[in-house]
Amino acid sequence: MYDRKVIYDILDEAMLCHLAIAIDGEPFVLPTIHTRLGDKLYLHGSNQNRLYKKIADGATAWLSITILEGLVLARSGLHHSMNYRSVVLFAKGEKVEDREEKRHVLEALVEQNVPGRWEDSRQPTEQELNATTVTAFPIDDASAKVRNCPPIETNADRELPIWAGVVPIKLCAQEPITETAGLDVPIPAYVCDYEKLPKVSLS
Amino acid sequence: MYDRKVIYDILDEAMLCHLAIAIDGEPFVLPTIHTRLGDKLYLHGSNQNRLYKKIADGATAWLSITILEGLVLARSGLHHSMNYRSVVLFAKGEKVEDREEKRHVLEALVEQNVPGRWEDSRQPTEQELNATTVTAFPIDDASAKVRNCPPIETNADRELPIWAGVVPIKLCAQEPITETAGLDVPIPAYVCDYEKLPKVSLS
Repeated sequence: MYDRKVIYDILDEAMLCHLAIAIDGEPFVLPTIHTRLGDKLYLHGSNQNRLYKKIADGATAWLSITILEGLVLARSGLHHSMNYRSVVLFAKGEKVEDREEKRHVLEALVEQNVPGRWEDSRQPTEQELNATTVTAFPIDDASAKVRNCPPIETNADRELPIWAGVVPIKLCAQEPITETAGLDVPIPAYVCDYEKLPKVSLS
Repeated sequence: MYDRKVIYDILDEAMLCHLAIAIDGEPFVLPTIHTRLGDKLYLHGSNQNRLYKKIADGATAWLSITILEGLVLARSGLHHSMNYRSVVLFAKGEKVEDREEKRHVLEALVEQNVPGRWEDSRQPTEQELNATTVTAFPIDDASAKVRNCPPIETNADRELPIWAGVVPIKLCAQEPITETAGLDVPIPAYVCDYEKLPKVSLS
């Protein structure tokens, strides 16, 4: 699927992205976080990171973003599957040099996962900004793949007296763990009432 | 970290793996499922899949497996992070030709995510086995990276009156959705009492 709405929804919901590039003909892959602003996907990293240096030098990147949504249990062993939504993006990255764009991306990287957090945080210093590389990838050559259905089986298999169906799965948040030792700072509402993920209590 | 126990625990718990290879100097990455048997990691796919053909021809693969475990909220915007456990494995793959090993891997791929399911399932035919490629990757050149701690901040930042802490996150299962239309087959215990993931009810 090449629908921008489908692709952008996946990019905006996902908390994790895998970045792959080839160096001297060998593949490298790195898990990282991402954010989308308009028609660009942004990553950040240390100035020392080898992958971002290679991307700045012109290496093409493959980005893969996958959200698992269900275990699909077919009657036949080989037809078991997963429900998921995923995007792959093939792009050359460009180092963001503009100060304001860089600040804006760093804000969005935090807001992507914890909406409301950036304003409360201590803002980056010039020195911190200089030590961080932000890279922009145009979202032009991207596609989405979505599987969101029951098991797909032959008619013969559908007659077998075996249970079949889907176990939906999703990321959930648990109760926050406060680190603020000795300081009387209440848990902010955007953490208490964290809405990006459903809440689960584990005994 | 190079401890086999740490690496194997991550491989055994994770439900998703990203496979990257380079083809003609360009990177390709694919989300897939995996299973570990002994000191090998196994993937499967259609005989038609271009990546597995290239791997059979000698292309090196990078496999990246990441389990997200928490959102780490630091007082400083730039020190926000994630808790996670991840493995990268760099290996040349080998096509599994042995019939019994192939069957055993396909069983383990289902059991990895739904323990108890394979025995209930319709077993693969010779034709299905022939249409599936199973690839083995020796776990020799692998490393794990684990972040599992509160935010790491400067002493000056720790004095700021801003809440800091961790929101633990994990994959959860929801109530199973039965597909068996018209057949009176009860939901098996390994689905009802699915133990691999905590259960969450969403309203």
